[in-house]
Amino acid sequence: MAYASQNLTQKLIASHLVEGSPHPGEEVALSIDQTLTQDATGTMVMLELEAMGLDRVRTELSVQYVDHNLLQTDEKNPEDHLFLQSAARRFGLWFSKAGNGVSHPVHQAHFGRPGATMVGSDSHTCAAGALGMLAVGVGGLEVAMAMAGEPLYVTMPEVWGVELTGELPPWVSAKDVILEMLRRHGVTGGGGRIIEYHGDGVRSLSAMDRHVIANMGAELGATTSIFPADEEVRRYLAERGREDQFVELQGDEDAAYDLTERIDLSTLEPLIAAPSSPGNVTPVGEVAGEEVHQVVIGSSANPGLRDFAVVAEILRGRQVDQRVSLDINPTSREIYADMARGGWLLDLISAGARIHQSGCMGCIGMGQAPAVGRNSLRTMPRNFPGRSGTDEDSVWLCSPETAAASALTGRITDPRALEESPGLACPTPRMPEAPTIDHEMLVAPLPAEQAREVELVKGGNISALPEFDPLPDEIDLPVLLKVGDDVSTDEIMPAGSRVLPYRSNIPKISEFVYRQVDPTYPERAGGVGGGHAILGGVNYGQGSSREHAVIAPRYLGLRLVVARSFSRIHWQNLANFGVLALECDEEVYASVDQEDRIRLRGLAEALHAGREVPAVVVGNGDERQVTLRHRLSARQVEMVLAGGRIAQYAASTG
Amino acid sequence: MAYASQNLTQKLIASHLVEGSPHPGEEVALSIDQTLTQDATGTMVMLELEAMGLDRVRTELSVQYVDHNLLQTDEKNPEDHLFLQSAARRFGLWFSKAGNGVSHPVHQAHFGRPGATMVGSDSHTCAAGALGMLAVGVGGLEVAMAMAGEPLYVTMPEVWGVELTGELPPWVSAKDVILEMLRRHGVTGGGGRIIEYHGDGVRSLSAMDRHVIANMGAELGATTSIFPADEEVRRYLAERGREDQFVELQGDEDAAYDLTERIDLSTLEPLIAAPSSPGNVTPVGEVAGEEVHQVVIGSSANPGLRDFAVVAEILRGRQVDQRVSLDINPTSREIYADMARGGWLLDLISAGARIHQSGCMGCIGMGQAPAVGRNSLRTMPRNFPGRSGTDEDSVWLCSPETAAASALTGRITDPRALEESPGLACPTPRMPEAPTIDHEMLVAPLPAEQAREVELVKGGNISALPEFDPLPDEIDLPVLLKVGDDVSTDEIMPAGSRVLPYRSNIPKISEFVYRQVDPTYPERAGGVGGGHAILGGVNYGQGSSREHAVIAPRYLGLRLVVARSFSRIHWQNLANFGVLALECDEEVYASVDQEDRIRLRGLAEALHAGREVPAVVVGNGDERQVTLRHRLSARQVEMVLAGGRIAQYAASTG
Repeated sequence: MAYASQNLTQKLIASHLVEGSPHPGEEVALSIDQTLTQDATGTMVMLELEAMGLDRVRTELSVQYVDHNLLQTDEKNPEDHLFLQSAARRFGLWFSKAGNGVSHPVHQAHFGRPGATMVGSDSHTCAAGALGMLAVGVGGLEVAMAMAGEPLYVTMPEVWGVELTGELPPWVSAKDVILEMLRRHGVTGGGGRIIEYHGDGVRSLSAMDRHVIANMGAELGATTSIFPADEEVRRYLAERGREDQFVELQGDEDAAYDLTERIDLSTLEPLIAAPSSPGNVTPVGEVAGEEVHQVVIGSSANPGLRDFAVVAEILRGRQVDQRVSLDINPTSREIYADMARGGWLLDLISAGARIHQSGCMGCIGMGQAPAVGRNSLRTMPRNFPGRSGTDEDSVWLCSPETAAASALTGRITDPRALEESPGLACPTPRMPEAPTIDHEMLVAPLPAEQAREVELVKGGNISALPEFDPLPDEIDLPVLLKVGDDVSTDEIMPAGSRVLPYRSNIPKISEFVYRQVDPTYPERAGGVGGGHAILGGVNYGQGSSREHAVIAPRYLGLRLVVARSFSRIHWQNLANFGVLALECDEEVYASVDQEDRIRLRGLAEALHAGREVPAVVVGNGDERQVTLRHRLSARQVEMVLAGGRIAQYAASTG
Repeated sequence: MAYASQNLTQKLIASHLVEGSPHPGEEVALSIDQTLTQDATGTMVMLELEAMGLDRVRTELSVQYVDHNLLQTDEKNPEDHLFLQSAARRFGLWFSKAGNGVSHPVHQAHFGRPGATMVGSDSHTCAAGALGMLAVGVGGLEVAMAMAGEPLYVTMPEVWGVELTGELPPWVSAKDVILEMLRRHGVTGGGGRIIEYHGDGVRSLSAMDRHVIANMGAELGATTSIFPADEEVRRYLAERGREDQFVELQGDEDAAYDLTERIDLSTLEPLIAAPSSPGNVTPVGEVAGEEVHQVVIGSSANPGLRDFAVVAEILRGRQVDQRVSLDINPTSREIYADMARGGWLLDLISAGARIHQSGCMGCIGMGQAPAVGRNSLRTMPRNFPGRSGTDEDSVWLCSPETAAASALTGRITDPRALEESPGLACPTPRMPEAPTIDHEMLVAPLPAEQAREVELVKGGNISALPEFDPLPDEIDLPVLLKVGDDVSTDEIMPAGSRVLPYRSNIPKISEFVYRQVDPTYPERAGGVGGGHAILGGVNYGQGSSREHAVIAPRYLGLRLVVARSFSRIHWQNLANFGVLALECDEEVYASVDQEDRIRLRGLAEALHAGREVPAVVVGNGDERQVTLRHRLSARQVEMVLAGGRIAQYAASTG
């Protein structure tokens, strides 16, 4: 399908459309060129590939990064790294070792190319839109499916055209642009939308500036963000020795958008997101003077060499305030090297900074937690409460300029104030003409014949993804748990430092399912054998998209969830892992008790025949006929009956 | 007391002797010039100073370092750092912020001076012997007392003269010297001894080489190690801008030693301590070829710029083996800066190293844990099982040369093999003529008037040291716990990642006392009020010197321990914190049951009168007279009756 005149998003979708019609709200299937996985989510993806029996990834390229779980307080994280390295060798992925750096900027530098599609098991995958890619963060199994050559099914979002005009004034940088978007629209403003930046103002932003803006589109709730592939992208790729991968990509001159917006860059001022939401944006001047305890520079939200060099030049020959811990996380090995070559690293060391290894570090609560209630200023993308590792934290998000000024004074400081005291002109660091390109930092895929010989290296904490059998045509299951409305995936499968280390170990992590709601559930589930059902209220499975909230209870024998209604992503995850999700009305919900039994017969026929599914409830010595409903497509019915998407895939290829 | 001819140890002891006679086995009291505390032990020391009501330290200088607990996974560690910074300001200490580096080498660089005495609440305090200091690692309260101007009481050790001759061959370095000592004598060979290095061979060792050797005297079990203050020490101090603090110090030409030893440096070869003891030393050649998973460079055992530069020059233009994680912990901010200035840092980054912040890091299990059973080679001082953070670890200790060669090949490699392949001559890095001296990295003590205004900053996890009241003259206590022989302080007060974060919080940590032996003890102790007793067998309180094994049960109401015998350090700690330790014979031990009561009357008179203490045991409706015994000196009797050393100190000064 083609429009007379198309915006860039429409062009990219058209060029990858496998199925469906690209109108907002309709489902489309898109072919996927590249995938990105990081270590916190990647172990499960690799276990899924193993369970699917995939021999080798079928994408143009897939890369496994290790950037999240870099703190090795026991053997679990280093053993996950070894597992991921062996899985990358086995399945034909590129591998980026611990210490190579943060996935998104490394991916942009080595693999990003205009016009490609990508899915990644990380919400900031959208950063790749900086180079004119269509890149979407999704759940692990969607990434595994893309690696297997399957298309991505998404509901076509609206396209939100944001026209940029003018140029940024001194002391204001790309971070302030995305903070302005968040100031205007808050953390849900991008929901169901793709943000397409265009207009004359784009030209003044470097490829890394665009990365900053596209990256934090995630905080607006957008499906993704996209910039045109223009001369700056050509320059960037040439500098990286990859000019041959450049193609010019722009929306048509008269392209229309579903929604429009305009930002005059020249009018922006330094902004800051106050605790504890990226949407709490205010001018820095309005909060200036508050005492600062910690300043952290780094993450995929401000990853460019420039972002570190600006901080270094502000601090050059000066000393961080005695009260402040200044923590620097060099984005990648290459950027670390260029910080050393350019002298900026020495500026930072001499100013009193703590320089950490390359990686996400404090951005995902891997160390760098602040003291309770003390202000921590970060160039990172998120400041949700407790994300820093400290429950009652006070984290602010800002530009490198604002962060450096505040580190210098020990108080939140509008960087423009540095012009008066200590009389500092806005630094414009001179970037190297030939930045470091280190091909050694990435391990290339093994040739297929060698790859087949590779054994997966599984430490004691890594167990294979359990095999899930097909759903029988007749089931008769006890209701092991009846819960109320709005149960979130955080309640089903808790996170936190006690549970997360078991993310590669379904048997172990399943011991924590519903821990806060009913800690007896895992043991009772193990006791009944033969499967069980859960009865839920309205909006069952809201919140985080975590797959473990389905995989772990499925491991414990969950085959059926009956609820008054389901949250969208959890409903999709239930189907993906072969758990039947049926809806009931208020009366049925009220009439069924925990420990009643639900009996379904002739399931395949009923599911294919229509939306209604007849059932028998047995309880209190009584049998009653009730009617339940489903929303599965024919494709999804087959998937659930097969035992889930992996089982279905294995059957189709096996 | 003076000898006709003295070794250096005798000279230093004579110049600081306050009380006693310096013959091996006799108690001496020594005046203390300097103290060193680090963050893991320093919080308790500062709480002790607060409890003692000390206004200002009375040493020549005292320094509080932050180098251990640098991983901030929640608010506890950063809040301890804030507390320590405020305590340093309040009590007149120097303060070294997180990221400034490892205490021992930083102390040597900024404060070490020949002829000074020092105590430190860290077992590697002995490293200061490199400059001709007499430096001893002790418990926290001993350090607090030294800060208050009190002398250190120690049993005079034997002096072990180790004569060094010749010069080290290529590829062999200072670490191999101390590994040779450990090869010869194992981890208990230095017990009750001070090791004094002398002879022509000393001249060829730099001040930092000597630090390597003196530091790991701790692993031999020695009280401390000491080197002469010679021309090399003058050169070192001059380079640091402190030549005025140099005094020449040598043993007399014909000085005698209690024991003697000789090492011809020219005969040494690369050595390695195999898992899991520093005493398991073997030539590298004998274990060459074993696969290596991780190599870690850093710690107070190999802290010099040279030790990093050698690694960098071996790896220059080369790449670490794909299987290896090479982790680099720059010793200090100054050495980090010199690594950057000299280009070595860039060598390491480019070779694929992960560069971490300055500090102890993996040396004390703060991250950098290896995978189970995989070989980790470290330039660190200890490889006790599990110290790395991984229970079933496989950690080896070696020189920087051996570590770098092994990182390059991915297998344990004798560095001399590099001459053949890849054809590398032994690097001799050219040290900077003027190394970085960064005075900004240390915060000087506040003037006394300002210091008095400072409030201690206590996060939610830091509570004041409880006040312990005097021991009543009559006590009548229930025996809350009866335990067997050889109970260790690890059983009394467990360590580990669940407990250690509460080291500044006696009320909280006391919940874990005797957790593995009888988890009901803390609650029962809280229930009885008015105090309780514990009955122990032989060798009660063996193992680690941790003070918490007394402070926490004392907090729960422990006033009396009756045991068949006590371990020396725990017995001293009981007295220090006002818990009465009495011995009983086998018959009495057998006849007293848990929940019996023990009654003592006229305690002060009985303790001063002699060794025997009459007591009444009440149990099973029966009262029996028994005789117990004590070993306290008159000074210690007063201390116990006063409620401990802090209470006694506060009374004497208050």
